[in-house]
Amino acid sequence: MSAVYERVALIGLGLIAGSMSLAIRRAGLAGEVVGTARSPETRAVAAEIGLCDRIVDTATEAVAGADLVVLAVPVGAMGAVAAEIGPYLAPGATVTDVGSVKKSVIEAVGPHIPEGVHFVPGHPLAGTEHSGPRSGFAELFDNRWCLLVPVPGTEPEAVARLRALWEGIGAHVEEMDAEHHDLVLAVTSHAPHLIAYTMVGVADDLRRVTDSEVIKYSAAGFRDFTRIAASDPTMWRDVFLTNKEATLEILGRFTEELFALQRAIRTGDGEQLFDYFTRTRAIRRGIIEAGQDTDAPDFGRGHGKT
Amino acid sequence: MSAVYERVALIGLGLIAGSMSLAIRRAGLAGEVVGTARSPETRAVAAEIGLCDRIVDTATEAVAGADLVVLAVPVGAMGAVAAEIGPYLAPGATVTDVGSVKKSVIEAVGPHIPEGVHFVPGHPLAGTEHSGPRSGFAELFDNRWCLLVPVPGTEPEAVARLRALWEGIGAHVEEMDAEHHDLVLAVTSHAPHLIAYTMVGVADDLRRVTDSEVIKYSAAGFRDFTRIAASDPTMWRDVFLTNKEATLEILGRFTEELFALQRAIRTGDGEQLFDYFTRTRAIRRGIIEAGQDTDAPDFGRGHGKT
Repeated sequence: MSAVYERVALIGLGLIAGSMSLAIRRAGLAGEVVGTARSPETRAVAAEIGLCDRIVDTATEAVAGADLVVLAVPVGAMGAVAAEIGPYLAPGATVTDVGSVKKSVIEAVGPHIPEGVHFVPGHPLAGTEHSGPRSGFAELFDNRWCLLVPVPGTEPEAVARLRALWEGIGAHVEEMDAEHHDLVLAVTSHAPHLIAYTMVGVADDLRRVTDSEVIKYSAAGFRDFTRIAASDPTMWRDVFLTNKEATLEILGRFTEELFALQRAIRTGDGEQLFDYFTRTRAIRRGIIEAGQDTDAPDFGRGHGKT
Repeated sequence: MSAVYERVALIGLGLIAGSMSLAIRRAGLAGEVVGTARSPETRAVAAEIGLCDRIVDTATEAVAGADLVVLAVPVGAMGAVAAEIGPYLAPGATVTDVGSVKKSVIEAVGPHIPEGVHFVPGHPLAGTEHSGPRSGFAELFDNRWCLLVPVPGTEPEAVARLRALWEGIGAHVEEMDAEHHDLVLAVTSHAPHLIAYTMVGVADDLRRVTDSEVIKYSAAGFRDFTRIAASDPTMWRDVFLTNKEATLEILGRFTEELFALQRAIRTGDGEQLFDYFTRTRAIRRGIIEAGQDTDAPDFGRGHGKT
């Protein structure tokens, strides 16, 4: 595959940027991948494991001469990074990001993008519960979606070029507007994460009552919540603070439904419970048919049967 | 390994009983495994795939001459099955069950157990989201816990023999009382399942607004809830109806915590969110250290990195 960009600058070297670097280099999609991170430890690890072609100390150094700049820091830090690099961006370059929230990132980053530089916000729907420079792997984006959220007036060529990069590292690309993105993600990601964090917190309180039994007997369902609730705390704090309205709206609906089911339990309404659980089973089939998960039992934990 | 029982009768041929049959036969732990199910279709499938040594049409036939009888039907059906087989149980036999709730099963089954027959309730903490006679596999119980909940006055020899069976098919065995079991399971399993069902139901409602996007973009967290919410609806209806008090208590605590976090989001209290998410990350480490899950990212979905 021929290079899509001459030089890609990655600001932040966590799971997403690290995986992008490995995938871009494997596919030969950039002349050079330059990376930087705020923390000296992260930069040292990245240099040690050869995560990028070159690791530099500052964001301004990283963006020098780059025709693609990827902001891969927590959503709450995007604005400050954009302010820092704005004056150093090369004319004709594209700036993108990988944040889980789009409206607030556009508001925070947009004003710092100079004339002649393209800004194409993005969000790859991929990840694991791990974080940091050692957590990346080149296959992370294979068959996953990457949503691009171009602001009005963006040159189509800049969007097409970024799309080619994401497709080159294995992702499917769709475009949507920021408001819609933030609502869809509140349903598919932000509310589920807050709920998982909450349930794990409740169990942690009860652990003091039941000794270590909550951990010992976690395999019956709770275990899967703990994986979801093991994601990076800084990233998730910023997601909830910046996608506040949509998340609170979905949580409001969730609480309403939960109360209805609690009432069915209290009054012994088995029919309502049965109907509800049958309906939710159908949506699972939809996800498997859409290729977004395998049907291997128990998350394919490898019981010797596939 | 030498046989622990002469003849094991399995009543109900779903995921758990099917897996028990395969595991018991693989390890040579019984002279014969006899199985039955209420539905003719289930019996036909079980016979076709050779799930047991022998498939019979009725529960009373199955228990004839059996020295271990395993009730593997939904919790709400246990009492009726016990009433049916009670008069046909062999003197000295042991009756056990695999239900997810213990207090109500003991109340429903206990009165039908005749003098001279042992009753040792049990609950293997193992499963997948699949159900039915084709879903079983011999490795299901490997390294999983099986909780035995003997009623007061049970002969220790009967408990020890059942323990030997479970250990023989790969499980670790612990004993606890019924009330404690039901509380621990409300935390580790019942409340998480209801929450997952609720979140999937909310998303299903919203699917009508967002077309198929909720399914398409499910990989960001929601997907994992749908797996949990794909479990057997009859089984779960019965669990909630029979472990009502403990489940409602845990759900009450959950709602309380959720409201506190929603308030932190609304007021922009990032510190509270960050501290909460850091605390829940620690419990995940406990589960991995306890050997109850692997640290493979993304449930080990096989991205080419382990």
